[in-house]
Amino acid sequence: VAVGLSEPVNILAISGITLATTACGIKSNGQHDLVLIKIDEGASCAAVFTQNAFCAAPVTVAKKHLSEKQPRALLINSGNANAGTGEQGVEDALQSCDWLAEKTACSKEEILPFSTGVIGETLPMASIEQGIQTLSEKLLSDTSSPEQWQAAARGIMTTDTVAKAVSKQVTIDGKIVTITGIAKGSGMICPNMATMLAFIGTDANVGESYLAQCLHSAVGESFNAITVDGDTSTNDACVLVATGQSDANEINADNKDAELFLNAVSEVCVHLAQAVIRDAEGATKFVEVNVKSAASVDEARDVAYTIAHSPLVKTALFASDPNWGRILAAVGRAGIEGLVLEDVSIYLDEVCIVSHGSRDVSYTEAQGQKVMDQSEIAINVNLNRGDSEATIWTSDLSHEYVTINSEYRT
Amino acid sequence: VAVGLSEPVNILAISGITLATTACGIKSNGQHDLVLIKIDEGASCAAVFTQNAFCAAPVTVAKKHLSEKQPRALLINSGNANAGTGEQGVEDALQSCDWLAEKTACSKEEILPFSTGVIGETLPMASIEQGIQTLSEKLLSDTSSPEQWQAAARGIMTTDTVAKAVSKQVTIDGKIVTITGIAKGSGMICPNMATMLAFIGTDANVGESYLAQCLHSAVGESFNAITVDGDTSTNDACVLVATGQSDANEINADNKDAELFLNAVSEVCVHLAQAVIRDAEGATKFVEVNVKSAASVDEARDVAYTIAHSPLVKTALFASDPNWGRILAAVGRAGIEGLVLEDVSIYLDEVCIVSHGSRDVSYTEAQGQKVMDQSEIAINVNLNRGDSEATIWTSDLSHEYVTINSEYRT
Repeated sequence: VAVGLSEPVNILAISGITLATTACGIKSNGQHDLVLIKIDEGASCAAVFTQNAFCAAPVTVAKKHLSEKQPRALLINSGNANAGTGEQGVEDALQSCDWLAEKTACSKEEILPFSTGVIGETLPMASIEQGIQTLSEKLLSDTSSPEQWQAAARGIMTTDTVAKAVSKQVTIDGKIVTITGIAKGSGMICPNMATMLAFIGTDANVGESYLAQCLHSAVGESFNAITVDGDTSTNDACVLVATGQSDANEINADNKDAELFLNAVSEVCVHLAQAVIRDAEGATKFVEVNVKSAASVDEARDVAYTIAHSPLVKTALFASDPNWGRILAAVGRAGIEGLVLEDVSIYLDEVCIVSHGSRDVSYTEAQGQKVMDQSEIAINVNLNRGDSEATIWTSDLSHEYVTINSEYRT
Repeated sequence: VAVGLSEPVNILAISGITLATTACGIKSNGQHDLVLIKIDEGASCAAVFTQNAFCAAPVTVAKKHLSEKQPRALLINSGNANAGTGEQGVEDALQSCDWLAEKTACSKEEILPFSTGVIGETLPMASIEQGIQTLSEKLLSDTSSPEQWQAAARGIMTTDTVAKAVSKQVTIDGKIVTITGIAKGSGMICPNMATMLAFIGTDANVGESYLAQCLHSAVGESFNAITVDGDTSTNDACVLVATGQSDANEINADNKDAELFLNAVSEVCVHLAQAVIRDAEGATKFVEVNVKSAASVDEARDVAYTIAHSPLVKTALFASDPNWGRILAAVGRAGIEGLVLEDVSIYLDEVCIVSHGSRDVSYTEAQGQKVMDQSEIAINVNLNRGDSEATIWTSDLSHEYVTINSEYRT
């Protein structure tokens, strides 16, 4: 059960984007596993991808296609990551694009392929071909509804237990524009410049360079600020598509409402990134780690991630154990040059547990226990050595995490 | 149950070192929790300590005392780490040294204190004082026997399930010298320049600078090459004492048998470090990660540790699942600049699972399964880009690890 996360509501369609989903048999449970996101002509697109040196075949292909043409369709399969599949994997990804191009009157370079699921198995190409046929038929009816966005959110899930989708509206030059995003988690989560899979559409008319700027800024404070297990996936990707079909004027860096749009994109990304953590494999806690008064943002992030990756901190969180010694030990091994023990204070929510480098004199175990019993907890660290800060979100390490990840393939 | 590790046998006493242990009530189960290692006059001593910025009070005191005098006694308590205890912790460590100094006709600077156990609680000083009284009385009888070394190995245990001790003998200039070491693990294990607690004695006569050289070299390839959970303890320490009471000549860097001695110290350290991993919290597998043909030793270690720290690799090991995709993904996210996917090959023992960056064409799941079903497994990675290599040892991530670490304080 996800922490404070229920099925998405109030999802809004995006003019200029149509969607279709089907079950082509990659997932053994009969759930939908092939998703098509079709984009009208005239849209602009920005994307970020995994920094894992072993990026999956579809990532290689999507990057290449994106550098050549504006995309007209995104094709996503779940259940198989098409990663570690070598030359065959690249051929399969290209073949999938070819088939879809034929059915949708595009060139294959106008199609971006995405995959998520088990690493190291080749795609079942006969099933994919049949699935693409089904998707193209479904596109003939009206498929731009909110329900289709929700179906797409479900269709890209692997071990996720709850679909992840959110919509925001913002007024630009007096005209409403809409942003809708979907994402999937939920293990091998420690995105680096991108995340698992997230697809965000907007009907805003956005200049290409500003669109890229929006995406990078939003991803930096959302998908690049979460971790479940420190494992960066081979398939991470986040795509932002602006169809320009709203009545609002083009948004660029010099537009007076540009920041409103950028903030709305950030809110969508933060919502989806937090949803990924709330639905992290085996999560029973949603944990925000704030590190402030650091000498640099990198330093603040290093400390936050060291806490968030510590198996000892994570198992203490699972146990609702206010074991502040483990948090202290994690801060101490974060590799911060010249860190002065006596300057550091640590809070659970508002409760000061460590001051001057040791247990705060006013702290009682009962206070810590009260915070730890909650399902949502903030660990706040003050390094008292500068003006920089960082926030990241993480989950605990539970028996269920071990169960899920020791039984995933069986 | 530890992986391939049973109670130590054939332990040899070290002339010039006497030991005593007692239960002073820090451990609630009545087990011995206070250990005294008394060193005859004329010995030399080398030590390495944790690099965690939040080092525990006894580490601070031991470092200071070691810089002032040659130690005559090591006082170790288990069950309480005296870490995160601020000024009070330092006072308590100094007070313990004072009490022992009185009883043993030393100065307090000749005593090194060590603690291991729960972080953040102050030492029960009345119990410690009583315990020191008992230890000093026990020292009056003959206490340099192998049984006393084994009792000391048990006395420093916390969540360890098996005592860790080993002896080696080596012939120097035709004379036999003996080395005996003890160590304790078994969580918060990712030593950095030192480890948990390890105490090694030898009757060899070793020049001080060569003794330090031996210890650093041995620790580098043993305690600094293991990880359970990536959490570097606040209390790590490793001490090597040479009493000089054997008949052998003094050993220095220019002595022709010096390397024999250094190798024997390394063997003792590697044995103890591996024992820590075999008895790691919840371990069901003992895993050796070898990375070869790297551009540098640092690079080889980075890749090895990224694999060893990956919760996804560790849960796959627990499940005996030859999920090579997770190993590949870990290599890919190790941050190696310019890593060429197509050059990398990965083996489970001798079975090639990945070549040219994807599943080896000859690999079958049955071959991988056969290796993974073993309790001792080697993951061998060839980066094919240089001449450097590194080996580290680790354990899997099991339900038992989560259980132990979510119930440790309750």
